[in-house]
Amino acid sequence: MKLDTAKGVRDFPPEEKILRDKIVATIKETFELYGFNPIETPIIERYEVLTAKFAAGEESDALKETFKLTDQGERKLGLRFDLTVPFCRYVGMNPKMKMPFKKYMSGQVFRDGPIKTGRYRQFMQMDPDIVGTDSMLADSEIISLSETVFNKLGFEVNIKLNNRKILDGIMGQLDIDKENRFPVMVSIDKLDKIGKQGVSEELSEKGLDNEKINYILNVFEQEASNQETINKLKSEVNNNVAQEGLSEIQEIINYLDIYGVKSVKFDPSLARGLAYYTGPVFEIYLKNSKITSSVAGGGRYDKIIGNYLQSKKSYPATGISYGIDVILEALKEKNMPIKKSVAQVYVIPIKVKKQALEIVQTLRKAGIKTDFDLMDRGLSSNLDYANKLGIPYVIIVGQRDLDNKQVTLRNMKSGKEEKIDLNDISKIKV
Amino acid sequence: MKLDTAKGVRDFPPEEKILRDKIVATIKETFELYGFNPIETPIIERYEVLTAKFAAGEESDALKETFKLTDQGERKLGLRFDLTVPFCRYVGMNPKMKMPFKKYMSGQVFRDGPIKTGRYRQFMQMDPDIVGTDSMLADSEIISLSETVFNKLGFEVNIKLNNRKILDGIMGQLDIDKENRFPVMVSIDKLDKIGKQGVSEELSEKGLDNEKINYILNVFEQEASNQETINKLKSEVNNNVAQEGLSEIQEIINYLDIYGVKSVKFDPSLARGLAYYTGPVFEIYLKNSKITSSVAGGGRYDKIIGNYLQSKKSYPATGISYGIDVILEALKEKNMPIKKSVAQVYVIPIKVKKQALEIVQTLRKAGIKTDFDLMDRGLSSNLDYANKLGIPYVIIVGQRDLDNKQVTLRNMKSGKEEKIDLNDISKIKV
Repeated sequence: MKLDTAKGVRDFPPEEKILRDKIVATIKETFELYGFNPIETPIIERYEVLTAKFAAGEESDALKETFKLTDQGERKLGLRFDLTVPFCRYVGMNPKMKMPFKKYMSGQVFRDGPIKTGRYRQFMQMDPDIVGTDSMLADSEIISLSETVFNKLGFEVNIKLNNRKILDGIMGQLDIDKENRFPVMVSIDKLDKIGKQGVSEELSEKGLDNEKINYILNVFEQEASNQETINKLKSEVNNNVAQEGLSEIQEIINYLDIYGVKSVKFDPSLARGLAYYTGPVFEIYLKNSKITSSVAGGGRYDKIIGNYLQSKKSYPATGISYGIDVILEALKEKNMPIKKSVAQVYVIPIKVKKQALEIVQTLRKAGIKTDFDLMDRGLSSNLDYANKLGIPYVIIVGQRDLDNKQVTLRNMKSGKEEKIDLNDISKIKV
Repeated sequence: MKLDTAKGVRDFPPEEKILRDKIVATIKETFELYGFNPIETPIIERYEVLTAKFAAGEESDALKETFKLTDQGERKLGLRFDLTVPFCRYVGMNPKMKMPFKKYMSGQVFRDGPIKTGRYRQFMQMDPDIVGTDSMLADSEIISLSETVFNKLGFEVNIKLNNRKILDGIMGQLDIDKENRFPVMVSIDKLDKIGKQGVSEELSEKGLDNEKINYILNVFEQEASNQETINKLKSEVNNNVAQEGLSEIQEIINYLDIYGVKSVKFDPSLARGLAYYTGPVFEIYLKNSKITSSVAGGGRYDKIIGNYLQSKKSYPATGISYGIDVILEALKEKNMPIKKSVAQVYVIPIKVKKQALEIVQTLRKAGIKTDFDLMDRGLSSNLDYANKLGIPYVIIVGQRDLDNKQVTLRNMKSGKEEKIDLNDISKIKV
């Protein structure tokens, strides 16, 4: 038998999992600080629910990359490819839910796609969402939360903000053919990457005349401040939908000022989730990191839940999705000391197993994470073990020390040793 | 479209997920107190790995209940049905791992089986394991950890302890046919449930004569204390394998005495995991609960990892698996107050949104979990919302209070209100 993982998935050994757990705990804690509540949905969903066109988005790879399976009753099932679709299904099934509903989900999602560096077939997302209000305060809450999350994780971020209505409105104003709008938006979105020249060429290939191209290159250029970019667009764009989008951006910018959020940059060229986002969209990038892809992205999706319910009732919703795997890569890049063990103390008995075990239990009762020798090994191999695992302190329990009602505490980093009275064991600082 | 979950799986709304998260956090914290380190393996495994006979166990339903799927490359895959098989695969793939290796895993597992009350097709397990030592100290560590876990969760437990070698040895001593041994052990295991009479009938049907049946009924009867049961078996069983098992039980009982573990009961009739356990086995039951099924079970499996590697090298291992779903049911039974929100404070602005938002951010910066009105609703519907969600405190921000540099803090349970100075907002006790 070939002993291997499935293709495109991976194991996390302690040194990675400890860090991953820390990321998850920090994010969870911050979500709760903002009053978001946890829910959980299954990894398996009905295939029909996962593949609803208005949910997955036609331009997305999610549909063809959905892992399919059947149960023994031949029911068609699939593994979820994101957390948004299951959440929409959840809201649809809980009509009595108190609104607004602020939730977060954490979980594994799956895509049966091509494997590249940093791209896996199972990966973890954490998503805060607010459903039941169309107030821009909700979008502002998501953005402020996101800045706080990344700051707590030790990152400075750039949060790009746009509003789908602005792109839509400008497409309308320029009278771009309906079927050409998504492709044109995709080209505009590349301004950062391929520059004005590149975008100009792409738009020309997509059949836009020079006048329209020049208008686009000018109008989508960011000014020095968010307010200046808003002002320019307000005066130059002559379309109601776009003006509505701009008012929403203005409102969010004003709220974020009160929140104290500093890292938002209004970028009118930002296009994401064209098939399902209906209002503000956000995309988060790390500053000072080798990781140039976004680490989180989201936006307002006011129509998906209503579509599931085939309901006239409106279910406005906004949220964001954090990519835990890419955040882990970014943290690993910071070269923090690697911990292979959570243990704070490792206890080594020198032929006094019973007393050592009592000390181990005393330490644990005091809330100190404690491991100890399970194999009757000698002092030096035990010290080597504790050292390899990066456990910071060792307590050596020997008969001579015990006769003086003491043990020896060794700082593994400095090598310094001190005697500790048995009565003071639960008070050691580790 | 039928808006529903897949058959046999379920959603957890906040009031259940908050409790579930608390269970998981308590268990995780206790695992780490005992020096167990987290690892993570994927939900998808190669089908061949999952279905190795020596791993799943032939008597188990796991094989036929494994969810199967394929990737786009037509590779045969499956969803893991427990956490032990992936862990064995992990150990096999990491030959340089420092031994002993103390790990825990938390995760979803899947079985495509019949649906009953309390039985789901996706459920959560948390497993601590120690690999790399055959010392009974490792098994004792798992048992002591388990008692601590359940006590911290607020439960008193009965931990049943046995050793596979005792059952094996007695089967040998009685000269039971090889193919009849598992069935006979399964009957003996029912002593608790169907009594001596019932077991006697089953054994008779399985072809045992009266002499053997009477020997079995006597030898498997528990005495008043663990030591007496050990002593009786030591004197009455005439088989080396069984005597080895008894010595191991003696050793564990001695260690657990030092650990301070009180809830272990040696039960020589306990049979579990007959296909793969090789030494001590444990099964945990709650005292004073309507839940009569076990909430955790495990044992020593010294051969599975070596079998995966087709290796002569020995990989002794022991561990246990906690059923998170059944623990959640048991906690819900305790009628604890239901929390639909993690928020500690809900802020209601009376037409002073900006100042309210500043107060919200001040509270959050002070580490207080804070939600607030996102919908410009009136005071009474906001109070109703906070009340329905079970948020314990509300802060009402109105202009008159603000003129006095104050806000109103309302205790939602007692209805009492007090004025708080703006400067003291981050110091409120919630």
